Amino acid sequence: MDYEAFFGAEIAGLRGEGRYRVFTELERRAGAFPRATHHHPEGTRPVTVWCSNDYLGMGQHSDVLAAMHEAIDRCGAGAGGTRNISGTNHAHVVLEAELADLHGKEAALLFTSGYVSNWAALGTLAARLPHCAVFSDSENHASMIEGIRASRAERHIFRHNDPADLDAKLRLVDPARPKIVAFESVYSMDGDIAPIAEICDVAGGHGALTYLDEVHAVGLYGARGGGISERDGLADRLDVIEGTLGKAFGVHGGYITGSAKLCDFVRSFSSGFIFTTSLPPAVAAGAAASIRHLKASGAERARHQDRVARTRAALTRAGIPVLPNDSHIVPVMVGDPVLCKAISDTLLDEFRIYVQPINYPTVARGTERLRITPSPLHTDADIAHLVAALSLIWARMGVERRAAE
Amino acid sequence: MDYEAFFGAEIAGLRGEGRYRVFTELERRAGAFPRATHHHPEGTRPVTVWCSNDYLGMGQHSDVLAAMHEAIDRCGAGAGGTRNISGTNHAHVVLEAELADLHGKEAALLFTSGYVSNWAALGTLAARLPHCAVFSDSENHASMIEGIRASRAERHIFRHNDPADLDAKLRLVDPARPKIVAFESVYSMDGDIAPIAEICDVAGGHGALTYLDEVHAVGLYGARGGGISERDGLADRLDVIEGTLGKAFGVHGGYITGSAKLCDFVRSFSSGFIFTTSLPPAVAAGAAASIRHLKASGAERARHQDRVARTRAALTRAGIPVLPNDSHIVPVMVGDPVLCKAISDTLLDEFRIYVQPINYPTVARGTERLRITPSPLHTDADIAHLVAALSLIWARMGVERRAAE
Repeated sequence: MDYEAFFGAEIAGLRGEGRYRVFTELERRAGAFPRATHHHPEGTRPVTVWCSNDYLGMGQHSDVLAAMHEAIDRCGAGAGGTRNISGTNHAHVVLEAELADLHGKEAALLFTSGYVSNWAALGTLAARLPHCAVFSDSENHASMIEGIRASRAERHIFRHNDPADLDAKLRLVDPARPKIVAFESVYSMDGDIAPIAEICDVAGGHGALTYLDEVHAVGLYGARGGGISERDGLADRLDVIEGTLGKAFGVHGGYITGSAKLCDFVRSFSSGFIFTTSLPPAVAAGAAASIRHLKASGAERARHQDRVARTRAALTRAGIPVLPNDSHIVPVMVGDPVLCKAISDTLLDEFRIYVQPINYPTVARGTERLRITPSPLHTDADIAHLVAALSLIWARMGVERRAAE
Repeated sequence: MDYEAFFGAEIAGLRGEGRYRVFTELERRAGAFPRATHHHPEGTRPVTVWCSNDYLGMGQHSDVLAAMHEAIDRCGAGAGGTRNISGTNHAHVVLEAELADLHGKEAALLFTSGYVSNWAALGTLAARLPHCAVFSDSENHASMIEGIRASRAERHIFRHNDPADLDAKLRLVDPARPKIVAFESVYSMDGDIAPIAEICDVAGGHGALTYLDEVHAVGLYGARGGGISERDGLADRLDVIEGTLGKAFGVHGGYITGSAKLCDFVRSFSSGFIFTTSLPPAVAAGAAASIRHLKASGAERARHQDRVARTRAALTRAGIPVLPNDSHIVPVMVGDPVLCKAISDTLLDEFRIYVQPINYPTVARGTERLRITPSPLHTDADIAHLVAALSLIWARMGVERRAAE
């Protein structure tokens, strides 16, 4: 077989569909977020980033950077091994205690990423609970889907955010069998929020474990940043709360929290936890500093919500089609991959505004969009500039204007 | 189902077998490697680490730490997004160029860990090459096994380091089908080295792609640290060379290198690459500094080999059973999980020497061992202390003495 020809043809196929990904090479500027330097073939240019998942700008917070510097000076660069073989650093243990406390759980377990935490934890639980059935929200993230797939467990997809459909599907499975209900609090691309209480009611009625991905909510919601489950007083209804250190906490890594036995079980049996080098001590130390700060301070969350509301209102007034939701994610709907990329390119080239186009497979075909993420650091002037730019582009490219759906 | 009871029983089972893992909580001391601080319930104690995969001590190298500090000050803590959505930093692009150059390949692709690089790259290639068959060495690492498993491709296990068996197995599959031969250069637990040229000859004869995991070799072998494939002048025989930034390079992360089209294909189709936050810029910058240093300097490699030879010779003279091999890994064979842990505990408690016991499933039952990894930083006195301690324990516990097998 001619492998090179095969790879070339597959890539050409992506190009033909207008969904070949071109990465935008940035240099974030600590102390100047959301400003960054765009490395372009023709040179470097300043840009304003409007699509970062460093939602609160904690990636430049002085406490976080100081903790990382200190850990590098004290412990060096990498962890030097897997958690079991010389790679458990004091910083990991401290961070796991911080995370367990954040969600009011007995224990936490750290992974190298949020992706790996979902894949490894769901993969291990669903594979090892005997004859387990998994009930997965139809909009769950790729990492959960891959974890469930890896487990080879029986999988039932329930309609997105639909407790009644979940209930109907749970009824079809033997009550004695172990079950897991896996879902998210804030869905990344639409920004909608799950009916957590109702889903827990249904899951509880069928004796299912509840597994909640809070990666787009931790740090951002709840009095201490414990996510939607904290905000709504539901953390104790969830057997597993999974989260990330790479979005609102501004650093890197993922985790689960739950009972001591559950975490010890995943720790002891998960290939993706056991056979991998642990996170650098400096990453763990930076994340712990970020969590600590956001447990005590609500200022970033309040300012974040204010910026989100202002951005959304201004876009709506300008007739730019924003998908309504109750979260901090502002999806501007375009509905065509080529147009979506053209808008993004124009924003970058003409207006020095960076919003990556979101195309299939990250979202369904026909729902291509610009996913805008305001932060506490975006000024009124930034918002006005964004809305003016989009209005001009919308007029020039003849994109449909409409009120919010 | 009573989930807590199930988890508890499974953990009790591990305890009963003597293979429940207790993590040793360390604090590495930058500037003083291989010294670390052991956090013990009764207080902290100084220890000498003899089982780190930071093989050359690059985790405390001044160039690496300076690059990390500089990147934190310039770019902040985290990357802020996936590679596609605001998370490609200039540091990632520079690192990928450094890696492609290291292995003499057109391109490189960075992953959040070595585990993820194997899982995602093999998973993507084997799933998407139409009707692919994978030929996997029987001793391949868990990350490769999981990647092949995830692909659902037809899998053939060939006898460890046995080109004749590989040839026999390849003959049974339709010559027209795409094929991947996946193996490692240095095997982590036995430290033996693959017959790379012979395996490439066989694979080439059947039109198979060759995929080599060099995680225990990059930085350590070859004139510029390109691994065994560089040392033996075989890099161009391999379609994919995979490696890690978390062992000899002393930092964190994983990668593949290969043709531009192959890397672009994996970049474009791999869930585990696409849907995850990219590495912190400081991690990428530290890794690039480490690679750059080890491309130019052979001093660490020479001193490493010297320390390995001296340790191995001293252990052998003392009648401690060392598994012979041609690499830097010094496996001291024990053959029983409970004894292995007891020896490790005694080394730590009485002699302040830390060597983690290696039990099933990391190695086969009956081959439990202490996996000793000398570094350029271990002194003659450190080696003498290690050998004296093991000799005392061997005598006291009545462990079998023998010449090397």
